[in-house]
Amino acid sequence: MSSADRLLLVVGSVAVDDVDGPFGMQRDLLGGSASFIAVAASYFTRNVSLVAVVGEDFDEEHLDFFRSRGIDTSGVERRPGRTFRWVGRYSDDLTSRVTLDTQLGVFAEFRPRLQENHRAADLVFLGNIDPVLQLEVVEQTSRPILIAADTMNFWINGHRAALVATLRRVHTLLINDEEARQLAGEHNLVRAAAGIRRMGPHSVVIKRGDSGALLFHEDRAFSAPALPLEDVRDPTGAGDSFAGGFMGYLAYAGRFDPVTVRSAMIYGSVMASFSVEQFSLDGLRNLTPALIQERFDAFHALSRFDRIML
Amino acid sequence: MSSADRLLLVVGSVAVDDVDGPFGMQRDLLGGSASFIAVAASYFTRNVSLVAVVGEDFDEEHLDFFRSRGIDTSGVERRPGRTFRWVGRYSDDLTSRVTLDTQLGVFAEFRPRLQENHRAADLVFLGNIDPVLQLEVVEQTSRPILIAADTMNFWINGHRAALVATLRRVHTLLINDEEARQLAGEHNLVRAAAGIRRMGPHSVVIKRGDSGALLFHEDRAFSAPALPLEDVRDPTGAGDSFAGGFMGYLAYAGRFDPVTVRSAMIYGSVMASFSVEQFSLDGLRNLTPALIQERFDAFHALSRFDRIML
Repeated sequence: MSSADRLLLVVGSVAVDDVDGPFGMQRDLLGGSASFIAVAASYFTRNVSLVAVVGEDFDEEHLDFFRSRGIDTSGVERRPGRTFRWVGRYSDDLTSRVTLDTQLGVFAEFRPRLQENHRAADLVFLGNIDPVLQLEVVEQTSRPILIAADTMNFWINGHRAALVATLRRVHTLLINDEEARQLAGEHNLVRAAAGIRRMGPHSVVIKRGDSGALLFHEDRAFSAPALPLEDVRDPTGAGDSFAGGFMGYLAYAGRFDPVTVRSAMIYGSVMASFSVEQFSLDGLRNLTPALIQERFDAFHALSRFDRIML
Repeated sequence: MSSADRLLLVVGSVAVDDVDGPFGMQRDLLGGSASFIAVAASYFTRNVSLVAVVGEDFDEEHLDFFRSRGIDTSGVERRPGRTFRWVGRYSDDLTSRVTLDTQLGVFAEFRPRLQENHRAADLVFLGNIDPVLQLEVVEQTSRPILIAADTMNFWINGHRAALVATLRRVHTLLINDEEARQLAGEHNLVRAAAGIRRMGPHSVVIKRGDSGALLFHEDRAFSAPALPLEDVRDPTGAGDSFAGGFMGYLAYAGRFDPVTVRSAMIYGSVMASFSVEQFSLDGLRNLTPALIQERFDAFHALSRFDRIML
């Protein structure tokens, strides 16, 4: 992996999570969409800048960890108050979760103001935040070649007009299957993706958890498998880790042709698979190029078959 | 496609279905697991024999259709009484269904007695029937090289001992994800497949509907994608169509090495994708080798990606 010149800007939440589930309550975990995205991306490019806000209580060790991954944290504002906290509980089979508590803290007043060097970002990922803020970020950038975004049911249902306005500026939307259905008002995923693409994004990535991910791009679909994993501990951040691997690889490759985007889908899947094996970002802490390559190869071995003629 | 010498024996139900759902009630449809399996298989081998029972009310046209596909119907008994009838209703999004009525009719007394020529079957598929009957079929065969089976929650929960006895004789179990979890008492699919393989089958195929299918075989897994379809009318028989394509291709190929079994997984997926696009077996009525090849290629295009080195 080499350092690319292209700057990947990641805007989103940095949070502290309490996560309950079959392995018991885990407290004070590093979380937030932007944390997972930036760290996952950092394995593909050393040119990642993080834009987020944290409170006075936020452990400097976490910022040190980001910096140890080569992530530029100059856009992480520390403000008076508490860091965004999320408390959730997973079902015993880890297939569903409920939010027990959300304390926005300093995140309530988050208004991203991009530094001059961040405005020149080549790739921008808008994590799951208020679409009004997502649009403000886009408008502050000067020359992005790829703008990608995530969103969630809260914005789809309650802030639809703002979301639709933002989507007009988004090239690639990464979204989970239920959210895609809600956004498009259509259960069938082929039709839902087509509906979303009529709103602006030329590509849609539909994340399906342990069913993998689907890419709708030009007139083609691509299905990335999920690696069947024996040990899953914490699904938190899986979709964000996917987004980080996806964007990081695209920043590294610097191309967006179909072959490259398919590889990005697999690197996204690779990073998601590492993420869910440990709590918090722990599955993304000690990776190496060799481990990432080995898992990429496992995805290849999992899904390859010969084109044969009867 | 050429005619193979290997005989594929398909034992299961032949039924008449009433199917309600978003497209309105469809009455008197040809159904039953063995119908879908035999017809799907018939596109790969002309040496399929069907063992089933029908009542006096069963339309001779359906048997003519089987015969037009080259299927040997000499093992289909016509008995006094009514044909097995199933009445079900799908949810508007076609993701769930309820059984409204089941009338076993002549199927209640079904005791498969294999003809001499059927005892010599090379491949045997045991459709979803009482595991006691499945085992009796196995015991009547003389030299099968592949015994595959399906089952369902009714047998898993209520007839477990009989099912476990049958599984000891089964080489490949094809089962849906929820049933795999129930059978193994384990939510994680990797562990569930391992648990099922300890019961006897050396291979397990887990069918996941529009999430594709997983094969656990030797020390490897294979993930077959589902083709994203814009128009799905009737999921009835999708899993059986998969089984038919899978078994039909293996009968044609006459080999069971990992590369061949992967191709069989894709041909199974191909036949399932055709099946759900129409009601009853209509999606399997007018296929051609060219249409099947075209769809196989669509699965390849959907899932292929290059093995790359960072």
